This record gives sequence, structure tokens and C-alpha cells, in this order.
Amino acid sequence: MTSLDDLPLRDDLRGKSPYGAPQAPVPVALNVNENTHGIPEDVAHDIVASVATAILSLNRYPDREFTQLRTALADYLGHGLSAENIWAANGSNEVLQQILQAFAGSGRSLMGFVPTYSMYSLLAMGTGTRWIAAERDEDFELSPETAAAAVSREQPDVVFLCSPNNPTGTPLSLETITAVYDAAPGIVVVDEAYAEFAPVGTPSALTLLPGRERLIVSRTMSKAFAFAGARVGYLAADPAIADALRLVRLPYHLSALTQAAALGALRHSHEMLAVVGEIRVQKDRIVAHLSELGYKPYRSGSNFVLFGGVADTRALFQSLFERGILIRDIGIPGHMRVSAGTEAETSAFLDALAALTSKV
Amino acid sequence: MTSLDDLPLRDDLRGKSPYGAPQAPVPVALNVNENTHGIPEDVAHDIVASVATAILSLNRYPDREFTQLRTALADYLGHGLSAENIWAANGSNEVLQQILQAFAGSGRSLMGFVPTYSMYSLLAMGTGTRWIAAERDEDFELSPETAAAAVSREQPDVVFLCSPNNPTGTPLSLETITAVYDAAPGIVVVDEAYAEFAPVGTPSALTLLPGRERLIVSRTMSKAFAFAGARVGYLAADPAIADALRLVRLPYHLSALTQAAALGALRHSHEMLAVVGEIRVQKDRIVAHLSELGYKPYRSGSNFVLFGGVADTRALFQSLFERGILIRDIGIPGHMRVSAGTEAETSAFLDALAALTSKV
Repeated sequence: MTSLDDLPLRDDLRGKSPYGAPQAPVPVALNVNENTHGIPEDVAHDIVASVATAILSLNRYPDREFTQLRTALADYLGHGLSAENIWAANGSNEVLQQILQAFAGSGRSLMGFVPTYSMYSLLAMGTGTRWIAAERDEDFELSPETAAAAVSREQPDVVFLCSPNNPTGTPLSLETITAVYDAAPGIVVVDEAYAEFAPVGTPSALTLLPGRERLIVSRTMSKAFAFAGARVGYLAADPAIADALRLVRLPYHLSALTQAAALGALRHSHEMLAVVGEIRVQKDRIVAHLSELGYKPYRSGSNFVLFGGVADTRALFQSLFERGILIRDIGIPGHMRVSAGTEAETSAFLDALAALTSKV
Repeated sequence: MTSLDDLPLRDDLRGKSPYGAPQAPVPVALNVNENTHGIPEDVAHDIVASVATAILSLNRYPDREFTQLRTALADYLGHGLSAENIWAANGSNEVLQQILQAFAGSGRSLMGFVPTYSMYSLLAMGTGTRWIAAERDEDFELSPETAAAAVSREQPDVVFLCSPNNPTGTPLSLETITAVYDAAPGIVVVDEAYAEFAPVGTPSALTLLPGRERLIVSRTMSKAFAFAGARVGYLAADPAIADALRLVRLPYHLSALTQAAALGALRHSHEMLAVVGEIRVQKDRIVAHLSELGYKPYRSGSNFVLFGGVADTRALFQSLFERGILIRDIGIPGHMRVSAGTEAETSAFLDALAALTSKV
């Protein structure tokens, strides 16, 4: 049998492993930061109607400029943005990959502050970009001074700032973002995949866009919007950024189904986001209970919580899995990450954890 | 206003233009080789039902391994293939891009035989791969000797063979494919996007897969399958090829909507392909009429025809466009490409061309 080693694979990919969060059918899946509440039934019906119309002309290529979708996303974001400021792709991973293809790649570098979203370094690898892992402050915080110093020292072509940060949940201040922007020679991306879960009143990096043509704010419909299965990521930036991405995007990269479904969901954005407040409540509940149980939860502006103080992460993962509960071992010794679910799912996790903790 | 030149774009992208077939709403669009017949109504209903079910769990990430879809595609292809031989992505462009990310990229090269599908060189550019444009024989044919000599001389890391070739329609013999494979040090991709339109009995490169672990046959649902709007491309190869692509594919790259729609269509593959024979008839009709009108059509194994002898391609494009007919100026002096449509669409094109030709 042929193995991967028998193929003329790129040298920099040899021995690497693919991204691989476990996918297992369990009753309580709190491992990939989905919105576990699902799509309201009346919204689902309207999305089906949109998609059904699109299916009638599926023999034709979709609108390559997805103009209606860009307009709807601009309206959703507000902040005076219009369609020309918006770009979208199949999940924010593809948005980020296109940014690297246009502004990084061979001979160029990408900086991130670790631990951070594990796809950043994999996207660097997939685009031939040199990955620079810069360090955070204590408790995974990132001060303007620490961030700007690293950027000044390394002069990366692109910087990815995850706000709030995954997998730690750490909020990021606008001061850190502007400090990085001022120090950076190139593109600065603020990945706001989880921004909708931040405490009410938290300012978005969208407020920083005017006058900063190298700044990009990326978003996703996968999380708060409960649309992970549809794969819709997008960004807001100066219109020239979209011009750059047109050079590297695959033509017709957003299917007619994706465009129709996203438009349907955005027509109901208020309903789609109605459960965000409830998810925040469950997140706060997780933080409080973890502390009571003697773990160390970190502050989180997201729909998940990172916690330390786990004696054996593999054993805890396995014990919870046997009880039908999936959380995430993200590779930080002594730490695990759990998503806030519905009240019932969150209770199932906390009860199981309490039982397991008292046994140890 | 910020322009693209103000941004820190990669040097190798400066001054380039994005892929851009005109998208205009005209009655007779014969410019991007779509299947103009549309999806049968009963099939559309079944696809809607599949997609409606998927929408209910859109808040969850899709099956990252799209196992059901790979099984269905293997069953459709036959030739003893099974799910482990299959990989898929958002259009065959993404399949080809992933192949370049894994086996080409910076410091490596891609060879194609021009004129050929214009995305090949753009995919090379987007992945930092050196593009090698090799020449064809007279009338855009490609003999085993010509192809193998170019491969032996240049030693490209990846070769893309378009079979039948776009935009020329030229069929490619299995002898040329095996000659290229034997001469090539690396991966050989046979892009069979239009294979279903070939004359009945034409052998597929799928028959060559056993024992050739560096050979990949790519396919698409965009053309014969009338599914361009859904963006589904796929490949068949040794299972180790899929292992390589897992290293560079974006996780969850195929949405739940895409998987559901494609599965729905594949359940009706017989119906979806029922019009292929009629399209072949219209293609043959185009070839015959073009000759009668004094143009030079090339032999085509596809659903489109390239023809020479056009005095002014820009003028012909414009004159047809004013009559609601869109065909393609593919940048070869004196040549244009037209897709075979329905009988009525094909007649509209041929009648308009006859009228325009007699006027000149």
C-alpha cells in the first residue's frame, strides 16, 4: 500500500498532522465552540425557502461578487460600512487563507500570539508563510507594550490578533490593537470570530477601521449566528483589501446555496442572536462553578472557558466522554477548554465534573 | 482613496488582473460551458428536501470527512473505486489548489500545455508555484512525444493535463497521459471536468489509476451534472493522495448544504445526465454550421467548440451581446469559444452568427 511518505509531498509538510478536533456523536458536545441552541424553526423555514429558489438555477455559476450577501453583511455590521468594505468566503479560515495568499506566502511571515487559534500556524504552513509565535503576558493577557514590542522586533508581514482569543477566551483591548497597527509594517487582522459573545458595550475593532487601510476585521457566522454548518466567514476593511483578495480567490468560491442560506439567516439576525445573552449566562456560570471546584478559569469574552488546574487532561477528557460529554484538550498542560451550551448541557458538564472532581 | 498599490501586496501579484468571465444577464449565455438545461423539477424537489434536513442542524460543524458524499461519488464513478479513493472540495478549482499546496508551492513548478484552462496559471500564482507553459502540436493537439519531451526537459513537480482540453475542446489520448506519467518525476493530474461529454466509449483516465500512485483524476459536478452553482469538484486517486490533502485542506471546507445537495443530485445521476446526449448533438451541429459559415472549428470532446477564422473577436463578441447572446473571447487571436446550449439557444447563436457573417 502506498503511504504518504511514498508521495512527492512538500518537505515542509512531512511528518505533520491535519487539524483534527474529534468528531463523535455524543449527547453533549461542548468541544468546538458551536452555538448549541440551533436555528429557530421559523427561521429555518425561511432559509429553506431561499435555498429552494437557488436550487432551481444551480446549473448556472453563482454571482462571483456575491453583491447581495456583501450588502446584507454590511447592514448587519453597521459602523457606516457598505458592500464594498465587505469580503466573504467559506468560513473565516478561507478568508484568512486568502489574506495570507495576497499579503504573505513564500518569503513573508505571519505573527500570532500563542496560545491562539491553532489554524493560524496551519494556514501559514499551507501557504508557505513563515510562522512567528510571539508570547503573551501572564494569564494569557496581551498588553499594548508586549504586543507592539514583538511586532517592532520581528517586522512580520501580517499579524493575526484573535479577539477575544481562542482557546483562552482572553479579551483584547483596542489599545493593544492600535499599538500593533502603529508598530506593524504590514497587514493587521483582528479575528473577531467570537465578538458577539463579548459583554454588552464592548467596542469592536470595526470602530478602528476609518483611516487604517492595513487593518482587517474578520468575522464568522459559525459561532453566535449558529451557522457553523453553512461555512460563512467574512471581513470588513478598506475596499482595496477586497481588490487584493480578488486576485487570489477562486472564481465563484461562494456557492449559490451558501449565498442564499446566509441571506436568509441575515434577514433574521435578531432572532438568530437572541440566545447570545443566555449563552453569556451559562459561560459566567461555568466560570463560577469551576472556581468553586478548585479549578482556575481564565476571564473570557467568548462563549467558552479555558481552565487550569487539571491533574490529567487526557483522563478528564476520557471520563467526560464516557458520560457523553465532549470538551477540548487544546494541548496546554493542565488546561482544558469547554464551550457554554444550553442550560441543560452546561449542567450536565458541571455535574459530571463535580462528581469526577470529588472522586479524585 | 486607498488603491491596491498602497497596500503591501505580494510582488508577484502586482499588476495582475483577477479571473473575470463577464457575468451579464442575457437570454442566451453560452460563455462558461454550463449545462443550460437546468435541473429536472422532481430532482430539485428531492435536493430541497435533503438540504432542508441539513438546515435543521446548521449550528453544528459539518462532517469534516464528508464520508457519505465520498461514498456516493465513488459509486457514481465506478471503476472499482471506494470512498477512500475520493476527495472533494468547493469546485475543482479548490481541488487543484489543494493539490498545488501539498505537492507544489514555493520552490516548485507546475506544467500545463497552453492554451489550456486559464485558472491553472492563476492557481500557480496564488500558491507561489512557478508556472511552466509548454506548447501543443498543430491544431492544439498533444501527442505523447510532444508532451513527454516537455516533461522530461523541465521536470515539473506537478503536471495538469486537461482532458478534453479547455478552451480548445481537444480530446487527450490515454497514450499521452501514460507517456507524461512515465516521464514525470511528480504528480500528474488529469482534469476531466468535461469527460461526461466525450463520445460514448471514450475511455477515462480512471482506468489508468491502478498501480499509479502519483496519478490524480479530477472531476466536477459543474458541467454535465448541471451543478455549477453548488460548487462541487472531486478527484479519484490512491488513498495516500487524500492523506496529503488533509494536511492543507481547511477544516470543514465542505458545508453541510453542499454535502446534502450533492448527495441529493447523485441519487438522481441518471436523470441529471439525461441531457448529455442532446448536448452532444448540439455541439456537433455547431461544428457543422461553423464550417459551412467558413469558420474553422476544432475537434471537440466537450460541450463547447473553439473556432478560428474570426476577423475581429471583440466586434463579434459585442454584436452577439447586443442580440442577447454571450460567448467567450478567450484571448487567442482570431478565435472564440461557444458552449452548446439547448436546441433553441444553439439556434439563436447560429442564426445570429449567420446573419452577422453574411453582413461582413
